[in-house]
Amino acid sequence: MNTCPVPLSEHKTIQMAHGGGGRLMRQLIDQIFVAGFDNEILDEQSDSAVLDLTSDRLAFTTDSYVVQPLFFPGADIGKLAVCGTANDLAMAGARPVYLSAGFILEEGLSVALLSDVVRSMRQQADTAGIRIVTGDTKVVDRGKGDGIFINTSGIGVMSSQTKPGPSAIREGDAILLSGDLGRHGIAVMTQRDGLTFESPVESDCDHLWPVVHALQEHGVTLRCLRDLTRGGLASALVEVAESARLRLHVSARAIPVRDDVRGACELLGLDPYYVANEGRMIVIVPQAEAEQALICMREQTISAQATCIGRIDGDGDGRVTIESEIGVKRILDMLSGEQLPRIC
Amino acid sequence: MNTCPVPLSEHKTIQMAHGGGGRLMRQLIDQIFVAGFDNEILDEQSDSAVLDLTSDRLAFTTDSYVVQPLFFPGADIGKLAVCGTANDLAMAGARPVYLSAGFILEEGLSVALLSDVVRSMRQQADTAGIRIVTGDTKVVDRGKGDGIFINTSGIGVMSSQTKPGPSAIREGDAILLSGDLGRHGIAVMTQRDGLTFESPVESDCDHLWPVVHALQEHGVTLRCLRDLTRGGLASALVEVAESARLRLHVSARAIPVRDDVRGACELLGLDPYYVANEGRMIVIVPQAEAEQALICMREQTISAQATCIGRIDGDGDGRVTIESEIGVKRILDMLSGEQLPRIC
Repeated sequence: MNTCPVPLSEHKTIQMAHGGGGRLMRQLIDQIFVAGFDNEILDEQSDSAVLDLTSDRLAFTTDSYVVQPLFFPGADIGKLAVCGTANDLAMAGARPVYLSAGFILEEGLSVALLSDVVRSMRQQADTAGIRIVTGDTKVVDRGKGDGIFINTSGIGVMSSQTKPGPSAIREGDAILLSGDLGRHGIAVMTQRDGLTFESPVESDCDHLWPVVHALQEHGVTLRCLRDLTRGGLASALVEVAESARLRLHVSARAIPVRDDVRGACELLGLDPYYVANEGRMIVIVPQAEAEQALICMREQTISAQATCIGRIDGDGDGRVTIESEIGVKRILDMLSGEQLPRIC
Repeated sequence: MNTCPVPLSEHKTIQMAHGGGGRLMRQLIDQIFVAGFDNEILDEQSDSAVLDLTSDRLAFTTDSYVVQPLFFPGADIGKLAVCGTANDLAMAGARPVYLSAGFILEEGLSVALLSDVVRSMRQQADTAGIRIVTGDTKVVDRGKGDGIFINTSGIGVMSSQTKPGPSAIREGDAILLSGDLGRHGIAVMTQRDGLTFESPVESDCDHLWPVVHALQEHGVTLRCLRDLTRGGLASALVEVAESARLRLHVSARAIPVRDDVRGACELLGLDPYYVANEGRMIVIVPQAEAEQALICMREQTISAQATCIGRIDGDGDGRVTIESEIGVKRILDMLSGEQLPRIC
């Protein structure tokens, strides 16, 4: 009686019953999620994971992922769901340690595709030393979802007593950018529009914690960290400027954008400063530590192209100014709406 | 330039741009979520919340909520999203402390309805002394979601070194049930089917932590706790029996089901033992402590009807047997699929 009448392998697609709390759901959890994420905390298969932590200061964050298409050059929704949430923890100066994974599956989803996503999540978690310790699965009727939505929430261990943030920023600080802009957005967008390039632009989706950790280890004063996701570099800079009530000034000449990305942006009518990234950040440090920070960042593959793009000005108006390639200065504002829907 | 061209109040429905990372999203977050959940940790509005915790042993859980309809007698998706996740923590013997809230909104959703849901979440969090400290919002195209999906992940503080669970169960232990069955499932189902009763059945959705806490305070040995959600009492019992590799025996005569719920179940062709609850649990305790535990549970409004429904038998076959009202003994198994889709 403990065997399910129909083995999961014979269900090639997700049924409503896979979310019903009965034998089929148990089977999906055991065969796909527990087998895929495999660790002793998750194996307990109770509704809560119990964590032993040595730190009494934690970072906690959540993100849902609704990207379309689910797979695109350089990444997929699973990789995104692990890196994206881990990066939010890293931006608080916290080492990502534990993730939860909540799946909302649309009836009819391919079980093989779900397995591929789970495998990708596991791989990214292993790469970063993160464990996926608790999860949940819901199934919605066909036409009430879109394949897979994933929520990951994360717990990170703070390695210092101070959390980097806009309030720590001071006049004269340097604004460092960890690499070239816009590859994630362009990778998703070209895939969606069926555009083909000679060599496809690959998403920059990756873990930022190793870079943050290296900076911490080198004793760099991390005034503020911000990953450049939805809304891109421009929105991140404006958010920081408004929160800090300081003026940020950057130079377009210093901001790396690859030629293929620039070309695709022109074709699609997008501004690369607003295009989403998933493995890029700005690091604001005291001017005196900028050189040391750049050397340290350039030792990491993901931030090998790190560069100083600007500084914090004294003016307290909370604006961002940018000097163009030809020396014209203008205000950089947040967009009202969005450039690219369903990008993460 | 820092003011949005169109105030949120003029957007009566959610637009794709509300999820785009720009000014409109900022406005939605500020006016609906930050204003609604209002606490100093969330107010920092960075991507991660930083938590100071005095315990080094935490429980961590996640759940997504996809219930339809969004509002039903006795509760709504917001109340469910707070109580459901808090209850998962309580079942680990942990005091629910912090929640995250991840929203997946469908384009065209009424902003007023979203506000009502947020208000309901806040009210339930306040009732239970829980703080919603971090969040995320995504918007999906019309027809790719279903109004609102909510993920809440929770962190709880373990009040003892041992987590209740099936492995702690011993032969002879008593199985206590905290109250009558099936009201949540019937409340949602009758609403969905447009059935009307003289007085509508209200969901039992509520917080279970106060009951667990009272039992802990009275020194009751909590061998195993399990809330009865999707799959109802029957699935919970079978899961526990299989994990513990022990036989559980219950008596139908002892299991309270209200007449209106029983009537609705007959009308809808449902078995109340499999119908979802959102404020009910089984509590497995040593036989010698059962009386004391029941007295303690009955002092709490939500478990005023607590009763002993069965015991743990010596047989190690991992099955559940039930003795019917007329004394016939049969095996109670998990359903293969589901009785009620989109119930939580």
